[in-house]
Parts: sequence; C-alpha cells; structure tokens
Amino acid sequence: MDTPPEQPAFEPTPAQRAAAARVMARCDELAAISSIDDGVYRSYLTPEHARCNACVAGWLEEAGLAAWQDAAGNLCGRLAAAAPGPQRTLLLGSHLDTVRNAGKYDGILGVLVALEVMAGFRAAEEALPFHVDLLGFGDEEGARFGTTLLGSRAVAGTWEPAWFDLRDRDGTTLGEALRAFGCDPAAIGEASRAGEDLVGYLEVHIEQGPVLEENHQPLGVVPSIAGARRFRVRVSGRAGHAGTVPMNMRQDALVAAAGAVHLVERIAERFEIVATVGQLQCYPGAPNVIPGDCEFSVDIRAGRDRTRDLAVEALKEEVARLTGTRGMRVAWEETHRASAVECASWLQRLLESAVLDLRLNPVSIVSGAGHDAMSLAEITDVGMLFVRCAEGISHHPAEAVTEDDVAAALAALELTLRALAAREREENPRCAAS
Amino acid sequence: MDTPPEQPAFEPTPAQRAAAARVMARCDELAAISSIDDGVYRSYLTPEHARCNACVAGWLEEAGLAAWQDAAGNLCGRLAAAAPGPQRTLLLGSHLDTVRNAGKYDGILGVLVALEVMAGFRAAEEALPFHVDLLGFGDEEGARFGTTLLGSRAVAGTWEPAWFDLRDRDGTTLGEALRAFGCDPAAIGEASRAGEDLVGYLEVHIEQGPVLEENHQPLGVVPSIAGARRFRVRVSGRAGHAGTVPMNMRQDALVAAAGAVHLVERIAERFEIVATVGQLQCYPGAPNVIPGDCEFSVDIRAGRDRTRDLAVEALKEEVARLTGTRGMRVAWEETHRASAVECASWLQRLLESAVLDLRLNPVSIVSGAGHDAMSLAEITDVGMLFVRCAEGISHHPAEAVTEDDVAAALAALELTLRALAAREREENPRCAAS
Repeated sequence: MDTPPEQPAFEPTPAQRAAAARVMARCDELAAISSIDDGVYRSYLTPEHARCNACVAGWLEEAGLAAWQDAAGNLCGRLAAAAPGPQRTLLLGSHLDTVRNAGKYDGILGVLVALEVMAGFRAAEEALPFHVDLLGFGDEEGARFGTTLLGSRAVAGTWEPAWFDLRDRDGTTLGEALRAFGCDPAAIGEASRAGEDLVGYLEVHIEQGPVLEENHQPLGVVPSIAGARRFRVRVSGRAGHAGTVPMNMRQDALVAAAGAVHLVERIAERFEIVATVGQLQCYPGAPNVIPGDCEFSVDIRAGRDRTRDLAVEALKEEVARLTGTRGMRVAWEETHRASAVECASWLQRLLESAVLDLRLNPVSIVSGAGHDAMSLAEITDVGMLFVRCAEGISHHPAEAVTEDDVAAALAALELTLRALAAREREENPRCAAS
Repeated sequence: MDTPPEQPAFEPTPAQRAAAARVMARCDELAAISSIDDGVYRSYLTPEHARCNACVAGWLEEAGLAAWQDAAGNLCGRLAAAAPGPQRTLLLGSHLDTVRNAGKYDGILGVLVALEVMAGFRAAEEALPFHVDLLGFGDEEGARFGTTLLGSRAVAGTWEPAWFDLRDRDGTTLGEALRAFGCDPAAIGEASRAGEDLVGYLEVHIEQGPVLEENHQPLGVVPSIAGARRFRVRVSGRAGHAGTVPMNMRQDALVAAAGAVHLVERIAERFEIVATVGQLQCYPGAPNVIPGDCEFSVDIRAGRDRTRDLAVEALKEEVARLTGTRGMRVAWEETHRASAVECASWLQRLLESAVLDLRLNPVSIVSGAGHDAMSLAEITDVGMLFVRCAEGISHHPAEAVTEDDVAAALAALELTLRALAAREREENPRCAAS
C-alpha cells in the first residue's frame, strides 16, 4: 500500500480546493451551533437541531436547490432530474446530530460534501437522469433518546411506534419532542422513502479509525458495515482477604477475567476481526480484598455475521476452559446484536473506479462503526466512501480532516454521480435525452 | 500436615467445653450490640461501644476481676498478681469494634477467650507471679475515622495529636467523639502502658484465612505480621473506537493491565508471598471504546520487609517490560507501606509448646492481616495464637468458629500462662512465693 502509484497522485484544482475550503468552513459554522459552551453537542429535536437545519436549508437554497424538513425532522434537499415527469431518485446523506463533546466532521462532513457536489452540478447546469436527494439525518448517534439511527430509520420506514415513549434525561418523550419541534408524530410514516424507485444511497463519512492514515491514502471504500455482538460477562470465584489467603488457595475472579481479556484479543487476531473489553469491574472492589466476582463487557465485530458468531463460540469455549480449570463459574449475557450490512458490490465498484480515476488507491475497510447506511440498506442498495481522519480520532474535539482529503472526497463523489448517470442512461433509455 | 498425630488429638473436657460454650454465647451477646439492624456494626466511641464495654466490664466483675475504661475508651480488666507490691504485667487482648456488616468473632473472640482464661485462674484461686491485664481495644478496624489501631496505639503511647482532628462521615472529630464518650482528649497519654515493666502481649484471633482449615488444625502460631506495600498503578495506552481500530494498531491499556494482573500472581508465587489486585478501572470505560488508561491497585504482603521490597522491584521491572513492548507508559504511586512485625521467638515457642501439649500441630502462619499486636510490639514482646475459622471467612456475617476449636484456644492460652508463670518464677525469684 505504501508504494506510490505510477502516475502522480490526485492534486486538487483551485476550484476543487475552494469547494473543499467551503465545506470545511461550513463544518466550522455548524460546530458553533451547540447546546454546550465548551464543545460541540447537538442532539435530536433540540433548538440547536432546528438552527442547524435552517442553516443547511439556507445553503441549499443559496445553491438553487429545494430544501425541506421531513416528518422526522430530517433536513432534505433536492437536485431535480433534468427531464420532467416521474424519475428515479439517488439518495445522498449522513447525519447532522453529534455526541456530547463531539468533533466537527462525524456525519456533518458527509452531508456537506454531498450538498457541495449537488450544488456543483446545479451551478454547471449539468443534467442528471435522476433526482438527487440530500438527507441530513436528525439523529444517528442516539445521544438524546438512547436509541440510535432514529432519523434514517424514519426514512427507511422502520420507525417503531414504541419509540414515541422513549424519554430523554429530562423525562421528555420522543413524541413530545417531535411535537415541540413542529412535527406530527402521527405523520411519521410520511418520512419514509420505502417503496420509491430509488437508484441507491451513498454516504461519505470520516473513517473514525486509523487504517487510511496507516496506508497513506485519503479515501476508502466500505465493503460492509460490521455486525456486532456485545456481552456482559460475569466470572465468579471466591472473595477473600488479600493478606490471609495463600496464592494456591485462591479463586481470584480478576485473575481469570484478565485471562479472558487476553483470550478476547487472541480470538480477534485468529478470526481477523475486532474484539474489545472496554469495561471491567471487580467486586467487592477494595485494594485489600481478593475479587470474588468480576464483570466485563465484550464487543465483537466482523464484516460477516458467520465469522462473528464463530468467534463468539470459540471465545465462550476458551473462557469456559480457563475458568473451569480454576474452579470458577462464568455467565454470559448478550446485551446487543446487530447484523452485518453488505454494501452493494456494484456501488463499491463505482466508488473504487472513481477513486482510481483520481490516481488514489481505494482502501477496502470494513466499517466497525454503525452508519445511517445500515438503515437505508433496508430499502435500497448502499455504498460508503470513507475519508481519512487524523489518528483515527472521532467523537472528540480533536477530530480532523485535511482540505486536500475533502477535495478528494468531493471529486470522487462527483465522478461517482457521473458514472451513475451514465449507467442510468444505459439502463433506462427513456432518460437518454437528459 | 494431614498425617494424624500418634496420640489422639485434643478432646475438650466437659469443663473446657462449658467454658468454650460460654465464650461463644458471649460473642453472640455482643453481636446483638450493633448500630445497624441487619448485621453487626460497632464502631469506636459510639453508644454501642459504650454498651459493649459495660457488658464486658460486667463479666469481668462477675468473675471477681477489676474492670475499668482507659483514657482512649479501651475496656480494661485485671487479674492481680498473687504477691503484693510492684509486679510486672502480662497483657492479653484484642479488639471489641467491628467493621460494618461484620461477623461475631474477629477481635471479640480474643478478648473473651482471654477473659475466660483469667476468670478460670481467679476461680481456681491459682496464683500467678504477674498481673494479667485484659485489653479490649475500642478501635482496631478504623471503620469510623479511617485510621486503624487507634485503641492499641493509645496503649502503646504512639497516639498522634493530629488524630484528634480526624472526622467521621457526619463531620464529628475524634476529639469531639472522645469527649462525648466521657474521655478527656488532653489525658489520652494516660492510656499508654509504655515504660511499664511488661512480660509481653498475647493475642488470640481468628485466622481470617483458610490455612488452618486446609491443614485440619484448630490452632496456629504467628511468626510475624506481614509487612505490606500498596500501590495505585496507571497504565496509559491509546483510547479508540472498538469497531474501527484494527487489533494490530491498538494500544489497549486493559490488555496490558491484564498482563500486569498475571505478573502480580506470578511474582507472589515466585517469592512465596501474597499479592493481590483488588480494584481495576478502565478509562473511559465504555463497552465500545478501547481503554486508553487503566488504573489498578496492587497489594503486596510478606513476612519480611526485604522479601516484600524485592518482590515489588521485580514486579515493577516486569510490568515496565510488558508495557514497554506495547509502547505504553506505566506510573506507580505508593499509597501505603507498613513494616513487618516479628513476634518474639520465645513467645512463639511457648505458644507452640502449649499447642503440642494438646496433641495438636501448631501451624506456622504469617499473618497477612494487621492486628493490635503490631501496636503493642512497640512496647513489649508480642505473640499471637490463631484459631481456625470456617472457609477463612472474616468481615462477613458468615464468620464461624467451632466450640471445640474455642476450647482448644482456651486450653492453649491457659497452658501458655502457666508456662509464662513458671518462667517468671525462675527469672524473677522475688515472685517465687506466689
């Protein structure tokens, strides 16, 4: 991967550089719309959400593009197809909400890159044989109501009525919050794009990991969004006085849990996936007491569900062997399970071609993080383009991208739209005029 | 140790059994004096402490023994020497306070076994060539003011004036609590027995560990009370998204800490000491975040300070090597250090002889827990006799001893007092008359 390509790599034109600079300035502008003073925090259906939507709508209208808000509070925009009459629609988007103390780019960058590309086609009066709709989702992070992907699930038509009763920290229900935002909960179904004739959904997003940086490449193409399983594991041994129980008479739950932490790492390496213990508690948890119980989280993610499940089974077996030889018990409670989502291979190929056309290497990266594309995959083919971010940092003020990388993302998305247009004209000759 | 001795082992006489039953009934009675409804909790200078002292004083007086409370609130009793005039004094004792949700025997058993033996000599009018003073310390556990051994430190004359300003949870200072208990803080020095002509200090205590049970022996003799060092260790790696950072690009602080937990176990085994990680926290501590930092406690105890310190050095070196190979940092903060206290070898020999005379094997057990004997060692020779407790459990309602084992402890202490008397008569012929 470190071998330089034969031709000089992508170098943005002054116009591309200006477009990238505009996108980054807008990311800065949205970052100032925050409910906390010392950092970025913009959650679903809040006054900040409304101000952010108004701001993005202004940019759409400035570019001559239609802008509206859907029944779930998602900000939408449209670059209408050249030809009149019923048309298929290509969806572009990402989310506009943030976690608490967020960076400027997670989600936001994808919305603003798409908007910039749409504005470019509009400004150049370059006709496309489909509508291009922008979706700026109001909730992906789940920071306010604890449930993620609310915005894109509304668009996918997979909104669950029970969600209206979800409450935020102040006790406000999601239903009440929708009404306060000016949305009618009873009309939530109107946000759904299911059943429409869709070309597909493309999402640009920062990588949130270090793979592009390690490979010295600005852009990556996502083959799948990893499936995940998460567990709460409890190892039970026997508590005792740290001074009075000889080593050979102990059943120290932490010593066993430490072995399990190493098994998690080894299993991940063996299956070429990722697995993490992020939380661990000892009970009773005093410096002078041998831990009688130890509880820890296990998070396992893989590009394919079968790999993930085989890894889980192998891990459970090895942990049982480890605790068994020490005469301890172990209990697993599954707390989360999400299936892997495959990106459409034809969209992957188009994105890869676009990146190659920029004389860059499209690195293939299974997305370990969840994305709005997961929801959209329920109703159309999805594709994702990753943008390098500094040190793989996200969900943190240190989140950073470079102007050159944003320019590359703009160029790649523009090329992909042209390729999609060409394909559309071929497959749907009624649009050949445009 | 499992080989049965050639002669039949100790079998209590009906009188010894009755004495043991009385001791256990009194332990039950004191357990009912508690500041909490659903368990035993009796801390220093509380109304429960006063009621407990009054109860024990009543038993002393019932037995014809003098009883008083010293300037630190310790309950004291005396079996006066046979001969009139100035005499040396043998101290017997343990503590009467408990941790929250305690058992019935930790501390208490030692006080009541000593009282019963003293009462036995008094009832039999068997003269001893020294005073025997009982010390029922008001604070050993440190549950109320956070500092342990307050009662025995007053007796050792090592009370520190700064302690008067220690506060309990309600903000009451130790000085105020002493006054409320009827003690004059200015007179605390009067509790000191330093400078007196002391024979030594003997303490009977439950083992608080499983060694006697594993060896099928009721009694153990303590060669030393372990020295301890305690650390707070912080391992720093790099936090990251559990889904997006490949395994080979991680610096997972918990994986390194788990290695350190295993090193702590291995070092303890190599040096034949005990070492424990009882607390461990991950930061930021979320299931979907790779731990960037991990903090844990290390508690190391050894019968000799040099062994303890060599083990600490070896551990620090190996942990540094481990974290170094993973490119992480480690920081050690020492939070506690206590020197080992040797029991006097001549007292150990007397206690061992007494146990052997009962046709039992005196198991040698380094005490990993702290005891009042540590304070008393500052002013006189100390010896400790351990009594088997069920499953090594202490500081828990499940704390348990058997009547037969208590009878063995009574018999061993009685024999030890006789041996001390014989020795005293030999060495101090002025007492030969008694």
